[in-house]
Amino acid sequence: MTYRAPVGDIAFALKHAAGFNAALAEGLYGDLSEDVVHAVLEEAGKFASGVIAPLNAVGDRHGTPFKDGAVTMPPGWKEAYTSWAAAGWNGLCGPAEFGGQELPLAINTACNEMWNSASMAFIIGPVLTMAAVEALYAHGSDELKRIYLEKLVSGKWTGTMQLTEPQAGSDVGALRTKAERAGDGTYRITGQKIFITYGEHDLTENIIHFVLARLPGAPAGTKGISLFLVPKFLVNADGSLGARNDVRAHSVEHKMGIHASPTCTMVYGDKGGAVGYLVGEEHAGMACMFTMMNNARLSVGIGGVGIAERALQQALAYARERKQGRNPGMPATQSVAIVEHVDVQRMLLTMSALTRAARAICYATAVALDRAHRGRDEAARKAGRERAALLTPVAKAFSTDIGTEVATLGVQVHGGMGYIEETGAAQHYRDARIAQIYEGTNGIQAIDLVTRKITMNGGATVRAYLDELRAIAKSVRDVNDPAFGSTAQKLDAAIGHLARTTEWLLAQMPANQPAALAGATPYLRMFGNTAGGCMLAGEALSALRGSGNGHSDAPRRVALARFFAESIAVQNSGLADSVIEGAASVNTVALPDAAA
Amino acid sequence: MTYRAPVGDIAFALKHAAGFNAALAEGLYGDLSEDVVHAVLEEAGKFASGVIAPLNAVGDRHGTPFKDGAVTMPPGWKEAYTSWAAAGWNGLCGPAEFGGQELPLAINTACNEMWNSASMAFIIGPVLTMAAVEALYAHGSDELKRIYLEKLVSGKWTGTMQLTEPQAGSDVGALRTKAERAGDGTYRITGQKIFITYGEHDLTENIIHFVLARLPGAPAGTKGISLFLVPKFLVNADGSLGARNDVRAHSVEHKMGIHASPTCTMVYGDKGGAVGYLVGEEHAGMACMFTMMNNARLSVGIGGVGIAERALQQALAYARERKQGRNPGMPATQSVAIVEHVDVQRMLLTMSALTRAARAICYATAVALDRAHRGRDEAARKAGRERAALLTPVAKAFSTDIGTEVATLGVQVHGGMGYIEETGAAQHYRDARIAQIYEGTNGIQAIDLVTRKITMNGGATVRAYLDELRAIAKSVRDVNDPAFGSTAQKLDAAIGHLARTTEWLLAQMPANQPAALAGATPYLRMFGNTAGGCMLAGEALSALRGSGNGHSDAPRRVALARFFAESIAVQNSGLADSVIEGAASVNTVALPDAAA
Repeated sequence: MTYRAPVGDIAFALKHAAGFNAALAEGLYGDLSEDVVHAVLEEAGKFASGVIAPLNAVGDRHGTPFKDGAVTMPPGWKEAYTSWAAAGWNGLCGPAEFGGQELPLAINTACNEMWNSASMAFIIGPVLTMAAVEALYAHGSDELKRIYLEKLVSGKWTGTMQLTEPQAGSDVGALRTKAERAGDGTYRITGQKIFITYGEHDLTENIIHFVLARLPGAPAGTKGISLFLVPKFLVNADGSLGARNDVRAHSVEHKMGIHASPTCTMVYGDKGGAVGYLVGEEHAGMACMFTMMNNARLSVGIGGVGIAERALQQALAYARERKQGRNPGMPATQSVAIVEHVDVQRMLLTMSALTRAARAICYATAVALDRAHRGRDEAARKAGRERAALLTPVAKAFSTDIGTEVATLGVQVHGGMGYIEETGAAQHYRDARIAQIYEGTNGIQAIDLVTRKITMNGGATVRAYLDELRAIAKSVRDVNDPAFGSTAQKLDAAIGHLARTTEWLLAQMPANQPAALAGATPYLRMFGNTAGGCMLAGEALSALRGSGNGHSDAPRRVALARFFAESIAVQNSGLADSVIEGAASVNTVALPDAAA
Repeated sequence: MTYRAPVGDIAFALKHAAGFNAALAEGLYGDLSEDVVHAVLEEAGKFASGVIAPLNAVGDRHGTPFKDGAVTMPPGWKEAYTSWAAAGWNGLCGPAEFGGQELPLAINTACNEMWNSASMAFIIGPVLTMAAVEALYAHGSDELKRIYLEKLVSGKWTGTMQLTEPQAGSDVGALRTKAERAGDGTYRITGQKIFITYGEHDLTENIIHFVLARLPGAPAGTKGISLFLVPKFLVNADGSLGARNDVRAHSVEHKMGIHASPTCTMVYGDKGGAVGYLVGEEHAGMACMFTMMNNARLSVGIGGVGIAERALQQALAYARERKQGRNPGMPATQSVAIVEHVDVQRMLLTMSALTRAARAICYATAVALDRAHRGRDEAARKAGRERAALLTPVAKAFSTDIGTEVATLGVQVHGGMGYIEETGAAQHYRDARIAQIYEGTNGIQAIDLVTRKITMNGGATVRAYLDELRAIAKSVRDVNDPAFGSTAQKLDAAIGHLARTTEWLLAQMPANQPAALAGATPYLRMFGNTAGGCMLAGEALSALRGSGNGHSDAPRRVALARFFAESIAVQNSGLADSVIEGAASVNTVALPDAAA
């Protein structure tokens, strides 16, 4: 099944749901023009559909065989990566002084969606290189930047981010990898890291590892962690490659999905310690990680959207082609395409509505991050930072939850064929699943939302956001178009449930934090339902106003916003009950005992 | 990860939620004693845990290689199957005159849950043999019964059920496989069948295929279908094996899960036609299929429960062992088992509550089927038949939906380890997924519930069932135990939503059937939520009353019923909105066009 980049929809969501056009009009993006944006998206769409998408099934079948410390990438992957990097996609929002194009993160996020639709296993490597660029650019010494940044920006070398150890997963502060001062300004790294994405591969001549480790005498927990740059091959002063460093891949995991992404266990210090270079200050490694945390979480979130979009396209195509059953009154010799059956329509509408809602949330998060970096003054940047902070856990967790939900509906639309690997629907279901786990599990995102995000400014940040959503619902009411059905009422109700739950959560903390945490996951879902529902309604209003310049798809957008409001946003009532009235029932009393 | 058969919980659910004890007391099961029931369940639990469960991962890794028309089952599978059949498990509720034990279907269903927990790929073959036994016993000629039944009951030979063809999936009536009268009372079968579970294997010396085919001049659709028995090897008059019949496996599918279950494409008539024997009357094949349809659907439903139970056990064990993070105020050097985190507790409670709810629904369906067959008079049998008819689509679809949901939560509890195949959590996620599709997709179950089941007796059957659920909620209110929290109110509300939605659906039909069908899937979920929530409350009440003879787990059961009511049954409000107010929004207007 081919992937067709939905460039029109992507541009529309960016402009009308995520506020990109407003930012453009304000001058946030300098002299960037809409034409350039469209041209970039079109080109990305062509590359994603034409070059990467056909490699997705190949990568799933071949995986990444590991032998004698080396990983062999699937057939065609090196060529695709090389031409992708050569076309400048890796450096799309990288710093200009090191060869990047400094385009908005929002544009990169839109491209990222398309790369993910084409192949999640392909893009999660480069996404980490981009994160490494960000950390190095913000915190690295001039010397390190000079040697490494240009090659990381161009994608000539790739980067890895190495946090996890067997005993240190969600709890990064528990890591034990050691760094010792070598006396010459460099460090020697010893230890083991697990679950390292693209820790070893044959796409590029060098791999630059960014490794969290602990110096002798460092404080316990996250306050004693430092960040080190550890190249696979040492780099000579002239930029040429020197000796192999004392780091190697020990094994590659056998995963349920993203088979073409080599997930490695890395071993440091077989021969006394890998040479590492400090990035930022000693013991300040977590600050360096936080620099890129929001972007990385958004990158994972948009992966959920990317897989959802591809699963939707595949299911839609199948539902329009596959004939089975008939409408009431038709003779037994006839049959209709299954898209004619309302139960199939409900599945497809759910897939489409959730995908577009998550897309809008992710793009809005990206625009907020752009504001955080590019805002004209500190007040504007602070507003961007806070909006991004509020939306990031939702962008990550809601989008990846719906990624899996949409993929499983995609399997269901295919019936028995969906369970056969050759069809491709099952790969989406397997691939999508990881995104709910890595880069902070979705449970941790929900806890972050409840404990650190809605509490910002005493709740003022989240309340202001809710007011914006209320304004959208009011606009739907004001436009008074019968095609919206009960969209305005349903959105009002959804916002009401979210608002009262927010206030209840704020009232629990800090004294009754466990009660608040018990409802974190359903609360995040409510947040996504509400934001997503309102943003789809906002897109529909934009289409109706004709501000979409020639878009004539207002009826479709209104109908989808209505479906979301009437069939999905209505979940908020039960979710609010679950958070508020269900909190007391979340404890270990009801769990089976070990001998049950 | 080992599987520990939860025999105590299974027996409790059977007795106190499913009404098995009441049936026993009424004499429905003759002189069967509770002791015998316990002994059977204990033995099944030992066999499932000790012999089959360890083969589950082996089967997943090895799959069923196919070469020159032959399938090689995974290492250890033939031995396990042979000893399983020899122990009499295949004939547990088979007819006594052919060597079966004629134990209640309810007992077999409980055993089936354990076989499924041990390995779904293992039991789905024998379950089809059991279905074949049922069809042959009800509709076969004395001659066919004499030759085939004993060996099918004992499991010396296995049976297959062959409906599906490329153009005939959900729409069985579209099948084209041909049968022609040979003139000697036998038939010649030509055609192709796909997705045939255990169509070929090396577990037994013969395989007996039950094949739907169409005679020359037969009416179109389901009214022109006949059922044929087609042995892999013809059987001589003395019962010995004769020539190879003209049927062969052409290929084995590469599926996402249940790798050890060979799913075959079968070809009939390379050499002029396979010899087939008519079962039942010509053109009456669908009636024969319907005989076993309820049982088969229940068997698939209990598969969802089985996988859910195993995923739950594995996640619980991991959550109690894995240390990560800490409670507020603990020093950074310490950590707690993740079961201490409330967000993890919510996942585990959701898994446990859904699993036990689905178990109760499946067992209640089995007891109803027993009443349908064993009831003392036609009125009692009719009541059993109708209750079984009402609950069967819920047992199938709700249980298999939650099978996948529980399995995905199980992956999440494991974090990154859940995505690594060696852990085993991912296999449950992959295996569980098929059960939502086969034996009638869950969408078709929902449509069956709405169009054919709640409409029985003008709605009287479903209304009587709702009254029973109301009585449970009232008992919870009457017992007035503060540990129940707001369970009674939440169940009342859930029943109220289900009742008003039921009446709304009944009012739509037949004139406005598409509006009703649009909400079929969320309606079935409401039904499962309500029945499951009430049945868990019923179990808790039984435990409180001490009728469980020595059970001291009332606090756990009350707490779980409360969690279900306060965190899951509360979904019904949104689901009712989705059915009633969302119906108008389900159409094709909102779907992306092909070029979007």
